[in-house]
Amino acid sequence: MEEMINHLKTQGFVFQGSEIYGGLANSWDYGPLGAEIKTKLKAEWWNYFVKKNPMNIGLDSSIILNSKVWKASGHIDGFNDPLIDCKKCGSRWRADKLIEEFDETVISGAMTNLEMEDYIKEHQIKCSKCGETNFTNIRKFALMFKTNQGVLEDESSAVFLRPETAQGIFINFKNSQRSLRKKLPFGIGQIGKSFRNEITPGNFIFRTREFEQMELEFFYNPNDGENWFEYWMEKVETFLTEKIQIDKKNYRIRKHENDELAHYSNQTSDIEFKFPFGWGELWGIADRGNFDLNAHQSSSGQDLTYLDPLSNQKILANVIEPSVGVERMMLAIMWQAYTVEQLEANNSRVVMKLPYSLVPYQVAIMPLQKQLIEPAKQLFEKLLVNFDATYDETGNVGKRYRRQDAIGTPFVITYDFDSLDDNKVTLRNRDSMLQERIEISQIEEYLKQKLKQKN
Amino acid sequence: MEEMINHLKTQGFVFQGSEIYGGLANSWDYGPLGAEIKTKLKAEWWNYFVKKNPMNIGLDSSIILNSKVWKASGHIDGFNDPLIDCKKCGSRWRADKLIEEFDETVISGAMTNLEMEDYIKEHQIKCSKCGETNFTNIRKFALMFKTNQGVLEDESSAVFLRPETAQGIFINFKNSQRSLRKKLPFGIGQIGKSFRNEITPGNFIFRTREFEQMELEFFYNPNDGENWFEYWMEKVETFLTEKIQIDKKNYRIRKHENDELAHYSNQTSDIEFKFPFGWGELWGIADRGNFDLNAHQSSSGQDLTYLDPLSNQKILANVIEPSVGVERMMLAIMWQAYTVEQLEANNSRVVMKLPYSLVPYQVAIMPLQKQLIEPAKQLFEKLLVNFDATYDETGNVGKRYRRQDAIGTPFVITYDFDSLDDNKVTLRNRDSMLQERIEISQIEEYLKQKLKQKN
Repeated sequence: MEEMINHLKTQGFVFQGSEIYGGLANSWDYGPLGAEIKTKLKAEWWNYFVKKNPMNIGLDSSIILNSKVWKASGHIDGFNDPLIDCKKCGSRWRADKLIEEFDETVISGAMTNLEMEDYIKEHQIKCSKCGETNFTNIRKFALMFKTNQGVLEDESSAVFLRPETAQGIFINFKNSQRSLRKKLPFGIGQIGKSFRNEITPGNFIFRTREFEQMELEFFYNPNDGENWFEYWMEKVETFLTEKIQIDKKNYRIRKHENDELAHYSNQTSDIEFKFPFGWGELWGIADRGNFDLNAHQSSSGQDLTYLDPLSNQKILANVIEPSVGVERMMLAIMWQAYTVEQLEANNSRVVMKLPYSLVPYQVAIMPLQKQLIEPAKQLFEKLLVNFDATYDETGNVGKRYRRQDAIGTPFVITYDFDSLDDNKVTLRNRDSMLQERIEISQIEEYLKQKLKQKN
Repeated sequence: MEEMINHLKTQGFVFQGSEIYGGLANSWDYGPLGAEIKTKLKAEWWNYFVKKNPMNIGLDSSIILNSKVWKASGHIDGFNDPLIDCKKCGSRWRADKLIEEFDETVISGAMTNLEMEDYIKEHQIKCSKCGETNFTNIRKFALMFKTNQGVLEDESSAVFLRPETAQGIFINFKNSQRSLRKKLPFGIGQIGKSFRNEITPGNFIFRTREFEQMELEFFYNPNDGENWFEYWMEKVETFLTEKIQIDKKNYRIRKHENDELAHYSNQTSDIEFKFPFGWGELWGIADRGNFDLNAHQSSSGQDLTYLDPLSNQKILANVIEPSVGVERMMLAIMWQAYTVEQLEANNSRVVMKLPYSLVPYQVAIMPLQKQLIEPAKQLFEKLLVNFDATYDETGNVGKRYRRQDAIGTPFVITYDFDSLDDNKVTLRNRDSMLQERIEISQIEEYLKQKLKQKN
């Protein structure tokens, strides 16, 4: 992974956050190429899960919500990490992680704080730093970032940065349903930043305190007899394999066992991806029942029911939530794309074998020699109108091919001296490295056709 | 404006933030239709200012940066509002606003706190609430939201929510330039959320504490003799008039006077828009010189210079910053589009005359009668593949036309009994309200051509 991270930094995909100031722990900025992939990935998701699904609509709610939202959702009371300090050396740990590192078959997430304290004592789990077993009791560490809004700095002005985009959808369920006269089933999708003050973030962009989510809350009538969970599992898999071309061998589905399920969840499955550090959760698909709408209805006193035309009774909709993190998806995409290929004569190349739908640039244009800069630039600006194009005039051609490989550009066009006479250019393919001569007048049509295909 | 806000709430463009909990001051959520316009607006900006400009590249930096960034940029020391309290009634005011309300020809932003205190005393400016002139001294109120990252809650863990996206670009100038081997001039664009703990936000979505910016920092060589300020002024105007079709009569350009300019700025112009409450800043275009790169170079100790090929010397690039807020632009767009038309027979309709490029839906499909639902739905799902389409089967046709007018859908297709025989449908135009019969097989081509045009 270190090798890939270096590659991503050098090429302009991902930079260390605040790097010129020595960085900021666990913070990453997306460079010009990473920003472009992210933009395209979000557009693909939005299209597939919101715009092109005839049942669904979108939403864009605030990061800072009324704090009553987080009281109702359980985040103020229940969203925290169990921290313990080593009395000997003063280092701080997450009790649940210590236990899982001690015995990975234990699901510490299902234990109470007391049970975890007892387990640690009973099994004499040691501090990983000093080796002693001498811990404080567990104290809860809130995972929501807290700040103050307005001129007063007291509890009345305390607000939180949302730890998930989902609650913004639940509180707008009725507004959205009513204004667009939606009938069940229908989904509301949203993309946006969330924040969690994680104690142990890490693994590059896999777990960061500031992250972006793509969430869909799909509301359905529990009486309609359809298996919507299966429906969305299939959609998620289709998106992965068709839209962003994740290889079937790189992911697996893990159904949560009953003792692992959140108390409100009927069923949950994770799509796990083979990350550089092992299998990790990429996408969670959960049937949350009517837990959320019920919580907000009770807390707000507002009617969040739906009139069921089948029974003619007011019901609370159930909800399926396919929820995925943008950065985690980016890591999966870039890790799968990152390829070091051995070529002949002890040569090698790094190629980002990104799907065409997500490449920063679809085509690069380069002049063979300085004298050809003008016509090559003209061609570049012409192609830029309909394609994501870039231009490169520095270094020898072989070097420039490698550069475009390194950033995943599927097609490179070289304008040479013959081009002036025969109106043809050399077009080179990223994956096969094959070159062909092609009429300049045919390029647009050629690219249009090729880029439509799966690579 | 109240009338329009009601319309936007009812139709699903903008909802009050956290409405079911009684709202949260100055917070707005974008409903399904508003979210769609926002997504399209951002895509238009990103395309025009980043992707399709041959000089520019994009970036996506974090909201939470190392606090040294805000020290260097001057935000920690200088980004605050001058607050005073009325000693009589205890109400709190912004001193600069009190002065400007008293005499709108005074530019209070250029005064020191002491000068403002003196001015208020001298002119006996009264508390707007109780009418007394008896104020405390001015105290600075920091506009950045502060929170804590990590397990400790002290000054060492204090971090801020960015008050602008610009600084994330400046600190990544060198990274981006180097990895993409960019030569001056080139720009770096970014879209993202910013936060300012404003004392007096308001005017609907015009000024909110949480908002989204579209910023371009265009770096140029001060020795190259080009007038880049003019270049970007023109681009901004072209974007306004061509891409999002803002009417020339609805905006004006206001050049900042010398005494109004920030100390580092060579020149600044605002595009002001005729908002419902009067002329207000829509877009600021500033030449910031090398103030920012210089500040970060001094503070970080990193070399942020560029080797000028003309003089062969290391120089700091100058920068032009066209910066615009997404929500403010949304307000301009929606206000211009919001039209109440008097029709014959005391009838009227509300039409959102949005440019085609920004409409939530390009086309609506409706069956004339219940028996026609199946073929109409089939047509809807077919059109959904290549268009932003919606479907409506409830109420009489006239009512459904009004609904689509109210949300700005340019074309409505009605499937009627004749359609079964002649394979034609009725297509109705939002603006002219004219109807025509059209072959079903011709619809896609018809819509494609029409939607390309300016409306």
